[in-house]
Amino acid sequence: MTAVIVAGIGQTPVGEHWELSLRDLALDAMQAAISDSGGLRPQALFVGNMLAPNTSNQAHLGALLADVAGLTGIEAVTLEAAGASGGAALRQGYLAVASGMVDVALVVGVEKMTDRVGGELDAALATTGDSDFESVQGLTPTAQAAMLMQRYMHQNAVPEDGLGGFAATAHANAEGNPNAMFRNSIRPDTYAKAPPVTEPLRQFDIAPFADGAAAMVLARRDVLPQDGRQPLVRIAGSAASIDTLALHDRPDILSFAACHTSTQRALAQAGLTLDTVNLFEYHDAFSIYAALALEAAGFAERGHGWKMATDGSIQRTGRIPTATMGGLKARGFPGGAAGVYQGVEASLQLQGRAGPCQVQGAANALIQSVGGPAATSVSHVLKVEA
Amino acid sequence: MTAVIVAGIGQTPVGEHWELSLRDLALDAMQAAISDSGGLRPQALFVGNMLAPNTSNQAHLGALLADVAGLTGIEAVTLEAAGASGGAALRQGYLAVASGMVDVALVVGVEKMTDRVGGELDAALATTGDSDFESVQGLTPTAQAAMLMQRYMHQNAVPEDGLGGFAATAHANAEGNPNAMFRNSIRPDTYAKAPPVTEPLRQFDIAPFADGAAAMVLARRDVLPQDGRQPLVRIAGSAASIDTLALHDRPDILSFAACHTSTQRALAQAGLTLDTVNLFEYHDAFSIYAALALEAAGFAERGHGWKMATDGSIQRTGRIPTATMGGLKARGFPGGAAGVYQGVEASLQLQGRAGPCQVQGAANALIQSVGGPAATSVSHVLKVEA
Repeated sequence: MTAVIVAGIGQTPVGEHWELSLRDLALDAMQAAISDSGGLRPQALFVGNMLAPNTSNQAHLGALLADVAGLTGIEAVTLEAAGASGGAALRQGYLAVASGMVDVALVVGVEKMTDRVGGELDAALATTGDSDFESVQGLTPTAQAAMLMQRYMHQNAVPEDGLGGFAATAHANAEGNPNAMFRNSIRPDTYAKAPPVTEPLRQFDIAPFADGAAAMVLARRDVLPQDGRQPLVRIAGSAASIDTLALHDRPDILSFAACHTSTQRALAQAGLTLDTVNLFEYHDAFSIYAALALEAAGFAERGHGWKMATDGSIQRTGRIPTATMGGLKARGFPGGAAGVYQGVEASLQLQGRAGPCQVQGAANALIQSVGGPAATSVSHVLKVEA
Repeated sequence: MTAVIVAGIGQTPVGEHWELSLRDLALDAMQAAISDSGGLRPQALFVGNMLAPNTSNQAHLGALLADVAGLTGIEAVTLEAAGASGGAALRQGYLAVASGMVDVALVVGVEKMTDRVGGELDAALATTGDSDFESVQGLTPTAQAAMLMQRYMHQNAVPEDGLGGFAATAHANAEGNPNAMFRNSIRPDTYAKAPPVTEPLRQFDIAPFADGAAAMVLARRDVLPQDGRQPLVRIAGSAASIDTLALHDRPDILSFAACHTSTQRALAQAGLTLDTVNLFEYHDAFSIYAALALEAAGFAERGHGWKMATDGSIQRTGRIPTATMGGLKARGFPGGAAGVYQGVEASLQLQGRAGPCQVQGAANALIQSVGGPAATSVSHVLKVEA
């Protein structure tokens, strides 16, 4: 397989962009990434998007966005895997370059959530679950997460505010990220004082849905501009796995098996072991997802992931820094773009361009894009080129 | 690149399956394909679907359908490119095996149209066009095709029933296909007598939307069961290209540039020239698409494609047989499944299993999956292994 280099990255701020359309957002990110790559011309575009056919009445984003970016004549397609759509698009971009199919691929994740609000957005989000057997009963993603959290707290005797450290870490990290939706730390009592949404899930257990777009130009090493940029970041591992879509089909709902499998495969491909991973961008759509992802990857024993939220392990200077630029919780959760934001942020970290968010000495990063209750998990390892 | 063999194929009849859900349809086709492959176990699933998030309130089909098929733990994702979704899924399945990523890939195209009817279905279909600038003005795919046909007939002085031969050929061929929606020839005057839908587009210029699923198991040669099956069919060429999504952005609306590009690339990869192609499954969602696809590929001069509908060229025994098992017009048009049906039908032809539809001596086939007014075109060449 050909080595796949991150040649350029781009992103829009995450937030409620009432004045920008889906295509505006995507164009901003794509242009920024192409510019960052020194003007490489992509031969293929892979779009990660979760809800646009419902929220923006717009499918067929491959042709639309390639056209908008002035790339008519290339090939383009949309990848959809609910919240893991961004990771899925990144994986196809990676494969396109790794296989020799193209020299330069463009990956863009985009989501325009604010075209719908309230019940209409809830209905759109419910399409990502098992429509015939779960969504139809009212089991939205949030309700599903509440069930997982309830079971987890019961089984592991977690105190009421036991998961609060995940939000606190994410918000503290987002302070230094100019593209984050919430650039503010929260007080120690903010979590506990926030209203419950679906008990035991409280407001700060839930990442905010938002608008945003992120893009990456991936390329073979020999087509990179000779501008002496250092260090180069390579995608060293890429893997995806699915679990059952419906929770009721699982023997053990607290085991994120797809996260486990995709992590193991991506690390093995990259030649890394867990104790050599420098940072981990997980999919903290809900704080319980963060705990379960840490356990599935093996950073914590079963039932102990929640303790990492407060024992310093996941802070910037801890054993395994997470949500280093705010994660989904504080950078914001722009649906199918989230997985590409992770790639952009990991690249910034490894290139030493993360500013106040910089994890010192980070030479590799594990990023994980998740759809549904880890029904889909796509993991990538990015590495500084020696 | 590794040689990619069509190891198994499966399909459901195309039609109005009021009693079957999206997952039922997909499961039937997947099981049939896996069974036809001698029980190979896929390591990746690529789903082609166009409208399910709108028509069935169901996104995240990768995880759902892999689970339904008993393939938990593999990787799975949905590819969407409007009417070309099936072709896009086939292309990713091809790449997965060709690149060495997996030994066995499963591709399934599925569409459940009859979950919506009337205006709701029209609204869902309109998401495949440029929502902000065309669909919002009422320019549905059918209206768009009527505009193309009007311009084409005017510019080339086509008589009123000049395109009628495309439907006649498709219906005649579908008679022998047990999975076709309309297994009946039409009388010479049927086309002219049918009511106009959007002038000059008449009823028989439009392929019927329908439910259906088709699946293909693709594999490396060395994992095929040693059961002596002959001949083997290989995917010898695969290419995709996009054009602008909106017609108003094109310098020449009667040039299907994406079809031209994807055809040229796929033929070149397969080492074929146009005059050595044995059959052509085009995307006859509208009869004008058939004429323009024949011209874009180079089978006819600009402005002359319509003449092939009646001069015998595209019949089973003609120069370039098309819609050999009914095409979209008579086999039926199950949205994102259509491109996979083309692959299944081409495989049947090359394996000599096409029954009354058999094109004698066919050793290769060009198939072309199209989204929108050829905003996306995905072309594949299948070949009998020497």
